[in-house]
Amino acid sequence: MKKNVFIQKVTNEGRITLTEAESKKLLSRYGIPVVEEFIVHSENSASNQAKEIGFPVVLKGLGANLSHKTERGLVKLDLRSDDQVRSAFQHIKKSAGTDWEGCLVQPLIEGKREFAAGLYRDPQFGPVVMFGVGGVFTEAIQDVAFRIAPLSPEDAAGMMDELSSHKLLSAFRGEAAADREVLINTLIGLSELGLAYPDVMEVDINPLIIQPDGRVLAVDALIILKKGPDDLSYTSVGYSEEKNQDLEHDDNIRKVIHTMAHPGSIAVMGAKRSRGNDISDLGDIFHRVSNFGYPGRLYPINPNVKDIRGHKTYPDLASLPEIPDLVIICLQAKLVPDALRSCVVGNCKNIHIFSSGFKETGEEAGITLQTEIEQIARDGGLHVIGPNCMGLHVPSSNITTMPYPPKESGPVAFVSQSGGNARDFNRYLHARFGLGTSKIFSYGNALNMDCTDFLAYLATDDQTRVIAMYLEGVKDGRKLLRIIRNIVPVKPVIMFKAGLTDSGARAVASHTGSMAGNQKIWDAFFKQSGAIAVDSMEQLAETATALYYLEKTKGRNVAIVGTGGGMSVAVSDTCTKAGLNLPAFSDELAQKLYEFVPRSGNMVCNPIDAHFMFFNLEILGRTLNLLSRNSGADMFIISLQLDWIFTASGLQAQYLETIARYIADEGRKNIHGKPLVVAFRQYEDNPEVLRHVVMMRDIFLKAGIPFYEGLSTAVLMLSKLAGYSEFCKGFKSR
Amino acid sequence: MKKNVFIQKVTNEGRITLTEAESKKLLSRYGIPVVEEFIVHSENSASNQAKEIGFPVVLKGLGANLSHKTERGLVKLDLRSDDQVRSAFQHIKKSAGTDWEGCLVQPLIEGKREFAAGLYRDPQFGPVVMFGVGGVFTEAIQDVAFRIAPLSPEDAAGMMDELSSHKLLSAFRGEAAADREVLINTLIGLSELGLAYPDVMEVDINPLIIQPDGRVLAVDALIILKKGPDDLSYTSVGYSEEKNQDLEHDDNIRKVIHTMAHPGSIAVMGAKRSRGNDISDLGDIFHRVSNFGYPGRLYPINPNVKDIRGHKTYPDLASLPEIPDLVIICLQAKLVPDALRSCVVGNCKNIHIFSSGFKETGEEAGITLQTEIEQIARDGGLHVIGPNCMGLHVPSSNITTMPYPPKESGPVAFVSQSGGNARDFNRYLHARFGLGTSKIFSYGNALNMDCTDFLAYLATDDQTRVIAMYLEGVKDGRKLLRIIRNIVPVKPVIMFKAGLTDSGARAVASHTGSMAGNQKIWDAFFKQSGAIAVDSMEQLAETATALYYLEKTKGRNVAIVGTGGGMSVAVSDTCTKAGLNLPAFSDELAQKLYEFVPRSGNMVCNPIDAHFMFFNLEILGRTLNLLSRNSGADMFIISLQLDWIFTASGLQAQYLETIARYIADEGRKNIHGKPLVVAFRQYEDNPEVLRHVVMMRDIFLKAGIPFYEGLSTAVLMLSKLAGYSEFCKGFKSR
Repeated sequence: MKKNVFIQKVTNEGRITLTEAESKKLLSRYGIPVVEEFIVHSENSASNQAKEIGFPVVLKGLGANLSHKTERGLVKLDLRSDDQVRSAFQHIKKSAGTDWEGCLVQPLIEGKREFAAGLYRDPQFGPVVMFGVGGVFTEAIQDVAFRIAPLSPEDAAGMMDELSSHKLLSAFRGEAAADREVLINTLIGLSELGLAYPDVMEVDINPLIIQPDGRVLAVDALIILKKGPDDLSYTSVGYSEEKNQDLEHDDNIRKVIHTMAHPGSIAVMGAKRSRGNDISDLGDIFHRVSNFGYPGRLYPINPNVKDIRGHKTYPDLASLPEIPDLVIICLQAKLVPDALRSCVVGNCKNIHIFSSGFKETGEEAGITLQTEIEQIARDGGLHVIGPNCMGLHVPSSNITTMPYPPKESGPVAFVSQSGGNARDFNRYLHARFGLGTSKIFSYGNALNMDCTDFLAYLATDDQTRVIAMYLEGVKDGRKLLRIIRNIVPVKPVIMFKAGLTDSGARAVASHTGSMAGNQKIWDAFFKQSGAIAVDSMEQLAETATALYYLEKTKGRNVAIVGTGGGMSVAVSDTCTKAGLNLPAFSDELAQKLYEFVPRSGNMVCNPIDAHFMFFNLEILGRTLNLLSRNSGADMFIISLQLDWIFTASGLQAQYLETIARYIADEGRKNIHGKPLVVAFRQYEDNPEVLRHVVMMRDIFLKAGIPFYEGLSTAVLMLSKLAGYSEFCKGFKSR
Repeated sequence: MKKNVFIQKVTNEGRITLTEAESKKLLSRYGIPVVEEFIVHSENSASNQAKEIGFPVVLKGLGANLSHKTERGLVKLDLRSDDQVRSAFQHIKKSAGTDWEGCLVQPLIEGKREFAAGLYRDPQFGPVVMFGVGGVFTEAIQDVAFRIAPLSPEDAAGMMDELSSHKLLSAFRGEAAADREVLINTLIGLSELGLAYPDVMEVDINPLIIQPDGRVLAVDALIILKKGPDDLSYTSVGYSEEKNQDLEHDDNIRKVIHTMAHPGSIAVMGAKRSRGNDISDLGDIFHRVSNFGYPGRLYPINPNVKDIRGHKTYPDLASLPEIPDLVIICLQAKLVPDALRSCVVGNCKNIHIFSSGFKETGEEAGITLQTEIEQIARDGGLHVIGPNCMGLHVPSSNITTMPYPPKESGPVAFVSQSGGNARDFNRYLHARFGLGTSKIFSYGNALNMDCTDFLAYLATDDQTRVIAMYLEGVKDGRKLLRIIRNIVPVKPVIMFKAGLTDSGARAVASHTGSMAGNQKIWDAFFKQSGAIAVDSMEQLAETATALYYLEKTKGRNVAIVGTGGGMSVAVSDTCTKAGLNLPAFSDELAQKLYEFVPRSGNMVCNPIDAHFMFFNLEILGRTLNLLSRNSGADMFIISLQLDWIFTASGLQAQYLETIARYIADEGRKNIHGKPLVVAFRQYEDNPEVLRHVVMMRDIFLKAGIPFYEGLSTAVLMLSKLAGYSEFCKGFKSR
């Protein structure tokens, strides 16, 4: 671990705060431009130094115990004469009393544009860099951006562009644009300082002044160290160490998870005879495993009955004929510690604890019990999924611990803290989008296996093409960032992050950290990792579908064909909000379209409002072809108002199928491989139409065309696709 | 019209800008505190005046043609000596050249907190007041709030509270809280000035300084007048005049619309023999009217056939046996002017023009045609719905011009610029929420009847309990604000405002106006009118349903009962974002619940996660009763995962109906009149379950319980209800 000479000195003196002068010297070693300044101890040297710098100057008190300098009257700005300097010196010396150790003389830095930059150490994410509006407005306006260290130059540039006040960094009211390169280096310097010195808890540079000529200068700065070894908000491992640890750990955990996902034998502790297909049955894991057709050796453990569902029972693990590849524990919480101990004794390393009643209760008894099993697992070298979780679902090896899941295997993996969400996601994805899952891991309280472990496994899992996640919190946020950033260029990772105030109780003691808040840090996380953020479980499945079926897009231009009017105005708004463009069609293109689209009743702009096309499908095909070649559109939406088409077709529901087949076949050919989604609206309770919606869906999905209810969803999905495509592009070019 | 002495002088001199001194004098007459200042014309008087004020002082150039004073070096701040004042005077005089008319001497006003206040005249909404962050940050940060004049004290207070930087107005870093009363009076003063002088196009006060002791002072100000009578961005009518005009106009238009909505006779110009039930038929208005069972006298006008659908045809209006109460024109656009002329000749005053091909085409021919018919209508005193619109739907008098609408009459009125949206809204509301409509007006291009006219009618229409609107733009935004503000305390008005850049081409020449943008003005509109903003057509119907069925709420506390886990975390986030609270249950309440809720497998917190209750409905009732009495909840959501319940019930779909009946009957009784909505999730394509969803919906809606797909929608609806309830409360107490 690096120990800087200043940090060493401060620590030796029992301080936790570097003086302003010490702080700036340390910062300047990381390429951060600080104001020139001189330490003086007498009125005469203050006076001489001021003359040498040139008036106006600034005089500040200096001392290891000086804080709140402005409030204590220890900062004197804009001193314009020798008299003023001498009087300020005496005033500061007197006000500081015994804390006085000297004064700093600095030139007065001109510049209306005050920014702030900083660093704090987040309990989940480690060193986090901040940049934002400075001066008196800092806290009031909170126009700030954050990035998790280490920062790339793109990350630093992104922080500037993200601010509402980014205009102040351009040429502004006769003043020059800020020196962007120096600002980027400043933020990267903070990141490097944070990684190099784990003792640094916080850095505050405020103001960081943009001078009229664009030069950047840190005028005041403060560095705070950790309080001591008991300070929990502290990450002790350096960045390169982290990377090395990843490699070894991930290799091991992959083997473990592979065994758990494809076990040759399973023992179920707490297996019971189920009472039939009723509500209590849903919670019966043994029933789930055997019912799903697990082909391996299945051992129910229950000392009270002889057999369950034709399987011979065993009184305990020790009686088994082999060491099972996976032990599932579904006992009452209080029985779990002994069960785990028997696993340790029996050398059963791979465990899934289904039982609840631990930390999640928020009650002391549960928390204590979790601490106990954590200790047993650590000492015994156990790998534990859970407790309080639904467990595993691997349809390709016929193993599940979930209630009544679909049997179908597919390209989407799901990693979830919530079991209910795992169950729902699986069903929704299958029923609405015809997609099966490769692997599902529901890991609940994450005793010693966290989402990062399952991600390490899925990263190299050939069955998995898209990874979906439901997350409430994570133990090691930095690892999560590293691992996802590596996966994303190969497989999209889509995450629903719930819990506005998550478990990682953020250090509110930190000034900079208090502005971060949970949301802002996770915003940074998504930007840096390339994970695609979604707002709901439904959106998770919708987005997984889009990213599985659609090729990457080359741009954000969309052409929409469908029933219009008021919907056209609304969908333009939706596109604008989602960051997509609806390019206007050229006069030339409109002329070409009017060659086969009648002017009466049709609007040939974007979106195209031309109902009749759905009753003259060849024209729809020609239109798509022309748009694909001449409109500048990168992506396509076809919008179908099914009730209207049904009525207009003379109540022929099967005509809906005809349209679907045309689009899936001819329509798709005509857009030459560009992403296409179909949106539908269907309001009425007509069972015939409802039945045909399902048939249309099958036709579209088989053709690789996502089929969404509502134009807004379709637009949102294309914007997610665009975001992912752009991230991957940036990643490749780095 | 009032003419201020300064304004008169400026106008006489051919100027459009008041000098700084003139501007401040006018502002001070409206109770706005301005810095004391003195006009000087010689170096000596500048020097004397500075000594009298006391150093430091500020010197500024003064002149009718002086603008960009800072950039031109005509502002000298912080002058601390006689020498500095004299040198500054000479410098300014020289820089200003022939534009120089004198200098202003002001004391230097101390204060870090710089705000800006202003006024601009919006083409749609008239005088609009602005308040926000001032100084160099004004445009860069754009932390600004707007309100449409006239401002109430509550409006002014709301502007302050709405700013991100509102913290700066409280006690801040050792400085006192800003004088709130003076700030409120400043904003109201700007509003009154704007209403009193229609010549004032723009007022900019920047900075408006908050001094360390909290006093508020306008340090710089500028007033700009209209350029001349051709300046279109100009409203000429004063506020009290507006109100008087409303009364008379609304009375007349109500009678007109009543006749159109309940016509004894209708003539259809352009009626034709339809070709049967196919796509072309949908556009056949005569078919629509006759098919819907219109009971009055119906006259098809068509010189080429003898009869249509058993109705004798007439060659023209003149041949009719009476003057029809309503004439519907569905001719080609180019034939419409002559048709309108024949209406004028025949004294037929009430017209619906279905035809399109006018302004909405964006093409010159169409725009010219619209100007032509506008002139004919004005000269002939015609009342015209349309052109380019779907027209009317009044099921209670069996009249419609819409394609295949539901027959049922109901409590919801709909006013829409888009015909397609009118059709869809009607169907969606009926099919999904069992609600019929009282009246629908689709008015398209709004030739001379705008949404404000239909609102005036619906305000006093007994059939209408809730008003829904789809709006892209409005001619008279001020009237819209006045009329909705009056309706809202009696009937909720729900509006989907589409079109991020609407037709009212905002005056970008205005400095203050350029920061308003369309969205910010409409935000102000919603806050001031009490109209409930929604984001989509679906949300419009959902919200209409909530506000029709639910009583007003007393607060924002929600209790949720249902299937939980990961959904609980997500719904907490949704509540937070929607501004609702999920109050934690007291230990005492939890104890009481645990008397009949088993601890195992159930979580007795908010949301309650206790699946078994749906299979022991009496417990569900007891729980609701207890929560209603002891949890502090003002509103309730019951969340049903239908697929799960279906599976857990042993695949008994009819059990879903049992649950619905229990909640609709016993469940509802147990919450003692507080608002209750039921949310459901249903993912799988099981036709039995789908059929039961429809049955459950009927049961719930008959019991007055809105039934929504998705917890997020349920939460959002309760937040809309809370917003409406709060607005009405505030309105009553005023």
